[in-house]
Amino acid sequence: MRLPQEVTIWEVGPRDGLQNEPTRLSTEEKIAWIDSLTDTGLTHIEVTSFVSPRWIPQLADAAEVFAGIKKKPGVVYSALVPNQQGLERALEVGMEAVAVFMSASESHNKKNINKTIAQTLPVLHSVTQMAKAQRAYVRGYVSTVFGCPYEGEVDVDQVLQIALSLLEDGVDEISLGDTIGVATPLQTERVLERLLKEIPQDRLALHMHDTRGTALANILVGLTMGITKIDSALGGLGGCPYAPGASGNVATDDLLYLLEGCKVNTGIDQAALLSSLVLLQNSVGHPLHSHASKIFQAQGGDSCGTV
Amino acid sequence: MRLPQEVTIWEVGPRDGLQNEPTRLSTEEKIAWIDSLTDTGLTHIEVTSFVSPRWIPQLADAAEVFAGIKKKPGVVYSALVPNQQGLERALEVGMEAVAVFMSASESHNKKNINKTIAQTLPVLHSVTQMAKAQRAYVRGYVSTVFGCPYEGEVDVDQVLQIALSLLEDGVDEISLGDTIGVATPLQTERVLERLLKEIPQDRLALHMHDTRGTALANILVGLTMGITKIDSALGGLGGCPYAPGASGNVATDDLLYLLEGCKVNTGIDQAALLSSLVLLQNSVGHPLHSHASKIFQAQGGDSCGTV
Repeated sequence: MRLPQEVTIWEVGPRDGLQNEPTRLSTEEKIAWIDSLTDTGLTHIEVTSFVSPRWIPQLADAAEVFAGIKKKPGVVYSALVPNQQGLERALEVGMEAVAVFMSASESHNKKNINKTIAQTLPVLHSVTQMAKAQRAYVRGYVSTVFGCPYEGEVDVDQVLQIALSLLEDGVDEISLGDTIGVATPLQTERVLERLLKEIPQDRLALHMHDTRGTALANILVGLTMGITKIDSALGGLGGCPYAPGASGNVATDDLLYLLEGCKVNTGIDQAALLSSLVLLQNSVGHPLHSHASKIFQAQGGDSCGTV
Repeated sequence: MRLPQEVTIWEVGPRDGLQNEPTRLSTEEKIAWIDSLTDTGLTHIEVTSFVSPRWIPQLADAAEVFAGIKKKPGVVYSALVPNQQGLERALEVGMEAVAVFMSASESHNKKNINKTIAQTLPVLHSVTQMAKAQRAYVRGYVSTVFGCPYEGEVDVDQVLQIALSLLEDGVDEISLGDTIGVATPLQTERVLERLLKEIPQDRLALHMHDTRGTALANILVGLTMGITKIDSALGGLGGCPYAPGASGNVATDDLLYLLEGCKVNTGIDQAALLSSLVLLQNSVGHPLHSHASKIFQAQGGDSCGTV
């Protein structure tokens, strides 16, 4: 098995986790948690989202959160931006990395963004151009790559065309989302095989949800194919909006266990990550989804008030 | 990725699951559940254990359970036997497949069996000889192959020597146990690489626990190396004795999702497996660990009284 020597984990918990989390954290709790993430050795953290507070009230304090966190040199702090207004708010407070997003399936895109794919592409084009003009790093999330809750299977050529269009706009990397956690290893291989024919490995990231328990197996396939950028959320924070109680983002702590065991370097300290997990668990006030967090609770976990 | 066309799942929930399950099922509940497992298309089911009721009171009704279940032609029903007395009880009621067991690490073997490895091998030798004389199929479980709760890493040559000794005794297949769920994909590859140099693929099974979420990734590695026999427990039943609340055996339902997605045939019907899962969940009276069971609960799962 050929695995990369190094993998970059993009921690998305403070954004993708909290936006799907029933418990609302205070701005101070968010800042304390993100600071503890910075202390783990993580190099990439998505800290918030500059979307309309009407859509995602959980993240209405985006500017305050970003202003409040410590910025460790060398760590990339990013935020989701849905459109030009969001980008302007993000740039105004000094964000140096932003993420645009759209779906690979027409129905999910309409439901999520209220636009067709054809209507979305020009919006992302102008947001990306504007962000690049300010020298911001731009990620492009493509959702429902491995399956759509409305359409089922998604055509990989549709994914490819969207990814190529975003890259042409100036997007620095594409994060391929298994939004509803349906991917399996064979499918992951097939999708990546197709995309890697036209897109370099280092422009692609995997953003897998663990809804059906297959996320780590799918990520392993990605690693053997040279993918070195993986998104995850500490504790598997956030759940899956389509199946509350089921897990959402693959857990950073579980991913790190696998990577450490496979001698893949991430620069993240396991003990510091556990401290950050305990802090998070105390803030959300309920047990988290990750295996690491369940083991911790089972072994005592006195500092978790929720056990 | 080269995957086998067909995989045999050995359902171990009624034995390995129930023996670690806090809720005690009645004999009738066990029989009803095992019958529903038979209806799924599973070809191998470990139904109970002929150990002393003093050790595992949950399975004291071994003979009654085996007498009560329907025996579908072509399905192998097995039972765990610790020693000659256990084997005699199993053969007396007509079991045609039995499983002997020991650990690959000295401390775990002593703790579990109260014998050294050197003292255990002759016992398993005579049990196996006696079972083979009655034309029974004999599995050999080797525990703590990927890590021991007392010793940490386990020498793969020690595992190999034990496996070879059991095979020489007449054991038909060796089930390699990740008893505490610590294995990672790279380790799985290394252990299998070593063993497969001296043991044919079809004499080896993987028995992975999902304590740290790595079980499916490890199994995927095994599949790519030609392993076609996998143990699992419906719903991930049983938990992990070292970390209550954490998951135990890899869940048959999650494994089936991965295999179906990878176009690997098992002969198991997903809808029938879900019915069996609901029956089990109603009997144990609490939510199960598997992802499939959490999705089912989240989507309504009205027939699960526990939701």
